[in-house]
Amino acid sequence: MVKNAFTTPLDIIDTPGGNVMHAIKKSSEGYAGFGEAYFSQIKYGNIKGWKRHNSMTLNLVVPIGKIKFVLFDDRKGSNSGFQEFTLSIDNYSRLTVPPKIWVGFQGLSESNSMLLNIADIQHNRLEVDVLELDDIKYNWSETK
Amino acid sequence: MVKNAFTTPLDIIDTPGGNVMHAIKKSSEGYAGFGEAYFSQIKYGNIKGWKRHNSMTLNLVVPIGKIKFVLFDDRKGSNSGFQEFTLSIDNYSRLTVPPKIWVGFQGLSESNSMLLNIADIQHNRLEVDVLELDDIKYNWSETK
Repeated sequence: MVKNAFTTPLDIIDTPGGNVMHAIKKSSEGYAGFGEAYFSQIKYGNIKGWKRHNSMTLNLVVPIGKIKFVLFDDRKGSNSGFQEFTLSIDNYSRLTVPPKIWVGFQGLSESNSMLLNIADIQHNRLEVDVLELDDIKYNWSETK
Repeated sequence: MVKNAFTTPLDIIDTPGGNVMHAIKKSSEGYAGFGEAYFSQIKYGNIKGWKRHNSMTLNLVVPIGKIKFVLFDDRKGSNSGFQEFTLSIDNYSRLTVPPKIWVGFQGLSESNSMLLNIADIQHNRLEVDVLELDDIKYNWSETK
């Protein structure tokens, strides 16, 4: 278990014409302030990783498709290893990721998947570390 | 023209595995604070309307499908009537709507469309006025 990483179930409200789907409120558990909101699409089977935000708290929601997130914690003192979270409309939840955790994610639906990140700070390259996919050994192929 | 309603073009960043699509930053024009983020889906041809938020500023982004927004301004002193905005991935922009404007919207893509609203306050029924679609005369059928 990666300390301070957790999911929160979200409401989907059946509304005439199309559903309303919650993402995050200022009062939500895990809300860490607002800096930027952006989407990231991920194609079927594709993997984006690894990135480590050293300052940003991520709040991730998947309103389209299905995405597997893999968190890797090599923080001194915790070193809790890998933890997986799969989000989709069928498991409609928000994933909160604290700073200093390596994150990779893979598209698991045949159509494109999409995440929304509500980040507490604006994008800033200086707080992001990047590794190649092979630099952290994880068996992605088992997960499809 | 509805005073203080405007669109801002947004960047789509071509990224291996799937695009990154901006939505809003704390420093963006039109950002009015953070209260809540939610999605609203709209089926093809369906219309949601009318709602008037008396306190909330809306910041609307359409990452999926195509949505026509119709704003109706009957504020004393402005009374600027109707203004239409159509958002989609091909016209990827953020629509900022100030308080006290009537808003309706229609799904224009055959697959479901979806908007994200980054609202400056949390949902509060007390600040929302609702009218039936027929209560504000607008020819939606011409717009399909």
